[in-house]
Amino acid sequence: MAKLETIRHSLSHIMAAAVQELFPKAKFGIGPAIDNGFYYDFELKRSLTPEDLPKIEKKAKQLIKKGLAFKKRKISKKEAQKLFKGQPYKLELIKEMKGGKIHVYETGDFIDLCKGPHVKSTKDLPSDVFKLTKIAGAYWKGSEKNQMLQRVYALAFSSKKELDEFLKKEAEAEKRDHRKLGKKLELFMIDEEFGQGLPLWLPKGAILRKIVMDFALNTYLNRGYELVSTPHIANLKLWKRSGHTDFYKESMFPPMRMKEIAKEEKDDYQLKPMNCPGHVKIYDSKIRSYKNLPLRLTEMGTVYRYERSGTLHGLIRVRSFTQDDAHIFCTPEQLHSEIVDMIDLTKYILNSFGFKEFEISLSIRDSKKKKEYLGSDKDWKLAEKALESALKSKKLSYTRYIGEAVFYGPKIDFLVSDAIGRKWQLTTIQVDFNFPEKFNLNYIDNKGKKKRPIMLHRALLGSLERFIGVLIEHYEGAFPLWLSPIQFMIIPVGSKHRSFAKKVAKSLKEQSFRAIVKDETETVSKKIREGEIQKIPYLLVVGDKEMKSQSVRVRKRGKGDIGIIKLSKFLKKVKIEQESKK
Amino acid sequence: MAKLETIRHSLSHIMAAAVQELFPKAKFGIGPAIDNGFYYDFELKRSLTPEDLPKIEKKAKQLIKKGLAFKKRKISKKEAQKLFKGQPYKLELIKEMKGGKIHVYETGDFIDLCKGPHVKSTKDLPSDVFKLTKIAGAYWKGSEKNQMLQRVYALAFSSKKELDEFLKKEAEAEKRDHRKLGKKLELFMIDEEFGQGLPLWLPKGAILRKIVMDFALNTYLNRGYELVSTPHIANLKLWKRSGHTDFYKESMFPPMRMKEIAKEEKDDYQLKPMNCPGHVKIYDSKIRSYKNLPLRLTEMGTVYRYERSGTLHGLIRVRSFTQDDAHIFCTPEQLHSEIVDMIDLTKYILNSFGFKEFEISLSIRDSKKKKEYLGSDKDWKLAEKALESALKSKKLSYTRYIGEAVFYGPKIDFLVSDAIGRKWQLTTIQVDFNFPEKFNLNYIDNKGKKKRPIMLHRALLGSLERFIGVLIEHYEGAFPLWLSPIQFMIIPVGSKHRSFAKKVAKSLKEQSFRAIVKDETETVSKKIREGEIQKIPYLLVVGDKEMKSQSVRVRKRGKGDIGIIKLSKFLKKVKIEQESKK
Repeated sequence: MAKLETIRHSLSHIMAAAVQELFPKAKFGIGPAIDNGFYYDFELKRSLTPEDLPKIEKKAKQLIKKGLAFKKRKISKKEAQKLFKGQPYKLELIKEMKGGKIHVYETGDFIDLCKGPHVKSTKDLPSDVFKLTKIAGAYWKGSEKNQMLQRVYALAFSSKKELDEFLKKEAEAEKRDHRKLGKKLELFMIDEEFGQGLPLWLPKGAILRKIVMDFALNTYLNRGYELVSTPHIANLKLWKRSGHTDFYKESMFPPMRMKEIAKEEKDDYQLKPMNCPGHVKIYDSKIRSYKNLPLRLTEMGTVYRYERSGTLHGLIRVRSFTQDDAHIFCTPEQLHSEIVDMIDLTKYILNSFGFKEFEISLSIRDSKKKKEYLGSDKDWKLAEKALESALKSKKLSYTRYIGEAVFYGPKIDFLVSDAIGRKWQLTTIQVDFNFPEKFNLNYIDNKGKKKRPIMLHRALLGSLERFIGVLIEHYEGAFPLWLSPIQFMIIPVGSKHRSFAKKVAKSLKEQSFRAIVKDETETVSKKIREGEIQKIPYLLVVGDKEMKSQSVRVRKRGKGDIGIIKLSKFLKKVKIEQESKK
Repeated sequence: MAKLETIRHSLSHIMAAAVQELFPKAKFGIGPAIDNGFYYDFELKRSLTPEDLPKIEKKAKQLIKKGLAFKKRKISKKEAQKLFKGQPYKLELIKEMKGGKIHVYETGDFIDLCKGPHVKSTKDLPSDVFKLTKIAGAYWKGSEKNQMLQRVYALAFSSKKELDEFLKKEAEAEKRDHRKLGKKLELFMIDEEFGQGLPLWLPKGAILRKIVMDFALNTYLNRGYELVSTPHIANLKLWKRSGHTDFYKESMFPPMRMKEIAKEEKDDYQLKPMNCPGHVKIYDSKIRSYKNLPLRLTEMGTVYRYERSGTLHGLIRVRSFTQDDAHIFCTPEQLHSEIVDMIDLTKYILNSFGFKEFEISLSIRDSKKKKEYLGSDKDWKLAEKALESALKSKKLSYTRYIGEAVFYGPKIDFLVSDAIGRKWQLTTIQVDFNFPEKFNLNYIDNKGKKKRPIMLHRALLGSLERFIGVLIEHYEGAFPLWLSPIQFMIIPVGSKHRSFAKKVAKSLKEQSFRAIVKDETETVSKKIREGEIQKIPYLLVVGDKEMKSQSVRVRKRGKGDIGIIKLSKFLKKVKIEQESKK
């Protein structure tokens, strides 16, 4: 069978041929194979509508059935100019071509400038492996100065099965799109006037974010981390010293020129893209002894990084995000056990959020290009060995990536698989030789001598924003009980059941649950419907019978009515569910 | 008796006369009365040291005892120039004087350019009401371009009693200085390289800050507030629309010019000085009905305001601080009860932190200058009445300040008294007519009509940084149990008691207490000393006897050893203390 790219490219010609039949005055741009399919650009007398797509597709299928040959010819520039008369884009391309001979392909009545390769005949093209998907505007040669053409996109695969699978996965991903769910469930908003890539957390999203942060932070504090808090801006001098203005400039917001507002202010200030310098300053604020190491400083630190507006995507790629950041300062002897602990912690944290499968990468130095890295041979050997032996001692499989280390040290990354098998990079654990040098960090060893500590960066959830974006897609917005912004909606059947509904809510709140009473004058079924749209784990309906027996009628998300349960028993049951994090 | 200012000014002449006797070649600058005393500027052949101050003071007292008269004379410029020959600063002043006659005062051998008034004779000056306090450098006429003179500061009051009281209060305040205690107790740091006015929270301070924030936030969430979270920067357009670039410009950091880093970026971004615009955007993100009002949005929002470096002071006046901010959107009918609830909440919150006494101010519009304010007569009437009637219904005494309202609405402020009687303004509750207009905010009333909501700003603790600065001074760093960063230090007598010490710590941690085991190889008395320096509420010493009886020997802060208590009983006791917030 022909290569997938050849099939896609050949189908692109056939689609163009179909357009030529339907729109005889069409002018043709280009039509390459792309990831998952192909496209072709056209200039037409009228704008295409979605209704045109099935028509073009039908015509293309008819052409395929004709068993047309793809005939290749080599002709002179002159012949080509004659052949493509009335096709301004093709003529422009011919003009730009170097060399005397020009390749063209003919398929039935359609002829195209093309080097191929193509299938021999449309007999080699299954007619059920492609699907036209959308129409978009595209400037000729991608330049705003040129004519806007109409681009028709199509999916194409080797078999119908592959196409169907792709379509299914795409539909699944669309259903889970955190931007749509974020709006529907009122979790967050992004407002053009406020600023691109700057998410504002709405009440339900802010609570979800708080639950995630509180869980992570409390876990860290219980495991020997110490909380710190540092400002979002610092003097630009600091970022010069740390080297950020050299190696990280393109990701930083522009500095604030203080002299613009007060002439006695000579310095510039910089929004922080990382939390490291603050933590380094805190380490360096007193003399440290080996007795007080490791020192593990953690902060839910909000950082700001410039990303081009075209790359921004919901919560996944933003300009403002909060890291569950930490920096560990330790002696070389402590490095191995610190990394082992960190791996354990990573697994515990990610498991708690429902991620059970990981892919682990170990990025090390390319030892042939030592000059591109900071730190001594001895340092690198120690750090790479510590990372690798920690992974081995935890019996974790991993892939080594030579030359993928950061210039300041080697690192381990964790990728998780979500509910539909997509991979997301979340956790990073990095050794840093840069900061301890640049900021001349020291500790006093057991012989009273000054030594350089080893510094580790690590963020386990990574960016809170991205992490919650992934969580929304992973759970399709139907969060487990412990993460649900609203856990219980209590629905009184009539006005006389309101006070009992409030009592139920109070009992839940006393156990630190999040519950609301839905006591507007609407029908019970409408309230249930609304609770279901909001994906609330439990809807508790209370009427005469329930009030009399101090019970609740429970509608469990995804299961519907599961019967009447005594309130006291129900409280115990959901307490266990909450603690299980499932 | 002479006026205090006259006494101070006269004493300043006497101090100068004393300097003249001790340093015959002294050149004299000026010597005015100031708050709490006076100063005089001198040019001397050598730098003064603190040891000179008692000598000058002694000489001044000898002069006072001589009963010298203050003789006033009016002389011509020419005579004055002759009289002050060799005194370049005085000559410069004479040159600048308008009019022909010049006033001089003579006291013994000292003569000064001066209009007075002064006491008649040093007999009218008690010699025990002043004290020279410090030496500082001061440019002649305050300009860097001029000669640096030596300034001697002194305190002076009407009576020795007042002086002693002032000195006592000052010593008390110095002992409580949050900048010193913040360093000693390792709560926070301010680092010149990081940036002025930008505090970094060290582990113990960060925990204290978290306790304060968690308590406030949980209280708000339990009282019907909803959590939101908004970025620290926004497009400058937003700040133009809100009017901040007009009326608040001098307190804002300079904008970030995005085109400096990417030519396709046309906008500027602004670090937020307030949280309001984000909350307003969230209000406006969906259609609001009267049924869903009041909407109370709260955020621990970190804001950045420019303050001149000379005015910065520890945590009290900073450039970066976190507000326990909230904005309430309500109907006019709900305004009164919202304010009443807010006053109750304020009292509860401030009481919880040990502040029992308040001074309340109600700032209203000057109705003669209506043009200086936004909002209609009807709005102002409603808002002022709502604020005032709320204060009245809570039977609170308050002072009305006419013309002290903000241009966008009237407000209530709460000042608290700290442990040594100093007043601190913390809470503010403000009505805002500006934002709902500028952002065209609406809700649908019960007749289906669009209405403008009323918006309230309020911060009860105010700035977290300032609040914690006040807390440190109020408690002199000896925080009540619930606020102490480290609540318990467990001290094992010998190495065989370590595991029991750890068990005690574990029991405490299981009850969410913050406990550390001090198990370094140091003497018990040294550990106790260290625990006392850190002002830890409880030091628990455990040895053979305690281990055997599952008890702890308790050293309570400020009380010393209070005996052996069963661990189980002690846990109950401190649980009650924790909950009492005392």
